[in-house]
Amino acid sequence: MQTHNPVSGRLSVEEYRQGILAANRRVLGRAITLAESTLPQDRLLTEDLIESILPQTGRSIRIGITGVPGVGKSTFIESFGNHLIQHGKKIAILTIDPSSQRTYGSILGDKTRMETLSKNSQAFIRPSASGDAFTGVATGTREAMLLCEAAGFEIIIIETVGIGQLEAGIRNMVDFFMLLLLAGAGDELQGIKKGILEMADGFVLTKADGDNISRVHQARTDLLHAIHLFPSSESSWKVPVITTSTITQTGIAEVWESVQSYIQTTQANGHFDVQRQRQQQAWFTETFQRLIQEKINDEPGLQQQQTEMFQKVSNQKVSALKAARLLVNEFSLSGSSKKNEQP
Amino acid sequence: MQTHNPVSGRLSVEEYRQGILAANRRVLGRAITLAESTLPQDRLLTEDLIESILPQTGRSIRIGITGVPGVGKSTFIESFGNHLIQHGKKIAILTIDPSSQRTYGSILGDKTRMETLSKNSQAFIRPSASGDAFTGVATGTREAMLLCEAAGFEIIIIETVGIGQLEAGIRNMVDFFMLLLLAGAGDELQGIKKGILEMADGFVLTKADGDNISRVHQARTDLLHAIHLFPSSESSWKVPVITTSTITQTGIAEVWESVQSYIQTTQANGHFDVQRQRQQQAWFTETFQRLIQEKINDEPGLQQQQTEMFQKVSNQKVSALKAARLLVNEFSLSGSSKKNEQP
Repeated sequence: MQTHNPVSGRLSVEEYRQGILAANRRVLGRAITLAESTLPQDRLLTEDLIESILPQTGRSIRIGITGVPGVGKSTFIESFGNHLIQHGKKIAILTIDPSSQRTYGSILGDKTRMETLSKNSQAFIRPSASGDAFTGVATGTREAMLLCEAAGFEIIIIETVGIGQLEAGIRNMVDFFMLLLLAGAGDELQGIKKGILEMADGFVLTKADGDNISRVHQARTDLLHAIHLFPSSESSWKVPVITTSTITQTGIAEVWESVQSYIQTTQANGHFDVQRQRQQQAWFTETFQRLIQEKINDEPGLQQQQTEMFQKVSNQKVSALKAARLLVNEFSLSGSSKKNEQP
Repeated sequence: MQTHNPVSGRLSVEEYRQGILAANRRVLGRAITLAESTLPQDRLLTEDLIESILPQTGRSIRIGITGVPGVGKSTFIESFGNHLIQHGKKIAILTIDPSSQRTYGSILGDKTRMETLSKNSQAFIRPSASGDAFTGVATGTREAMLLCEAAGFEIIIIETVGIGQLEAGIRNMVDFFMLLLLAGAGDELQGIKKGILEMADGFVLTKADGDNISRVHQARTDLLHAIHLFPSSESSWKVPVITTSTITQTGIAEVWESVQSYIQTTQANGHFDVQRQRQQQAWFTETFQRLIQEKINDEPGLQQQQTEMFQKVSNQKVSALKAARLLVNEFSLSGSSKKNEQP
């Protein structure tokens, strides 16, 4: 186990752990920063930290919330979050916006938009700018979720924009996946990445107020009709469509009741535990594959060969079978030679 | 390159290749059997064979057809296939039914049900009983598709039952993915695995004849309404819903026109090539991961450790991060020690 290292400014695993268990927000923030780091020594430290807090994780309700820019995610989450806090819950909100890798604009924006939440001691808001192009999942999101659980947050919200590869990964780490939609001329789902529709455990129509009300109710009818045709879910959960307004505070309580009802239903029929277990297993497989890839990246020659093979496969110069065999053989040899260098 | 091996009954790569390029159906069949084998020496031979025929692949139209048992897949494919042959096409049909691993029942059934096609020299029907629990994709399906292309088949149909993990894998190897549905009381999609809906490039309603006609037309209206709400496809293709009857031969021509229209549209806007390239890349990644797994399986100690870690991760005894790190480290060491044994 790595110990305190004053040079790098990291804390020791025990210092992180104690700070987190004491709900020290500054330490929690620093631990999430550590978990987001891709530096090898930070990854090892993160692994030790996660291992040490493992018994204190798993007790929150994990909610994924996605919707295209303009749907009103931040204002909805502000209303929803305040509702949860009024019901005595401590909540953590992790926002991921791959586009903010460039501008950092929406990250500052989030803080501003969730104005009351960001000042509430029962809420912890953490924007994340990082995103991994390979898996689509931001490095450290799952770790951040576990760290927040260990710090005593009872509901974790992971917010994404729903236009990329990210959501399959997020779906694979939350209990309830919510899709926010804006009523339009029958194209509520436009802009949303194909495949996200069938992931949703609940649809939330935003901005059901003023002139927009009748349009939102029509959208709800249409969506319910469409959902009725959908394949039945493994969880035997009936996906609801809830109309909400952050101006009139309509439907916010209903969304929370719906999430609770989902948790009760799936805990009773066993789906909740099955899903959590599958998510653990998927995390193991993903991490194993990521670590193999890191080993490839550690060897410049091997990484270059991988890039070349990828190109050749893309251009049909070599079959994927042959290319993968060559790469795996080189990979095995590289491990051996490395070992021989350090007897 | 491996050469003729009379002991195992395998042909040489060159013998397979020449037989396939000469459209020798017996050699093609034997090559597919080879590609389905998971024996290490057979895999190597398959890799060499695929590499040798690579320039002769890629020119067919690849169609995935899925639908639950009872929807009428075999009779539809028989009508559809005969229509294609009448238009001068040579077609290959690869059917995968994981359930037939147990009984082999439906495999014999397929041969009987596709009675006219199975006797037609322009058609090649190949049932496959094998399925890999890990990836969900039958071992050798992609290879079988490429072998059929090299043998001159211009349309490859891959048929599956749509109730399992298999379809994401199949979607990732075909150009057009077709979902067959039976009109019911608004639950046409029941039985279909969640997530398959949004994969479809076209819906086909079967058995639009006799008393069933009005029900099928209502189902079509409902489906079109639902699809209208769907996210727009990356290919900018408008997903059609076609009603068909194999008794009256209604809609069969329309299905083929629709597939052709899709090919033209996506070839014109570039999506066709982009999708094919992504599929090549995914094949590379999948194969790499499979070969890494095979290396783990080759080491009983390592395989046992993987199983134990998987259990511990499932039961929250260890974090996925730590478990994966331990496994990757053991994996690297095992490669090294093996090398040291054979200097």
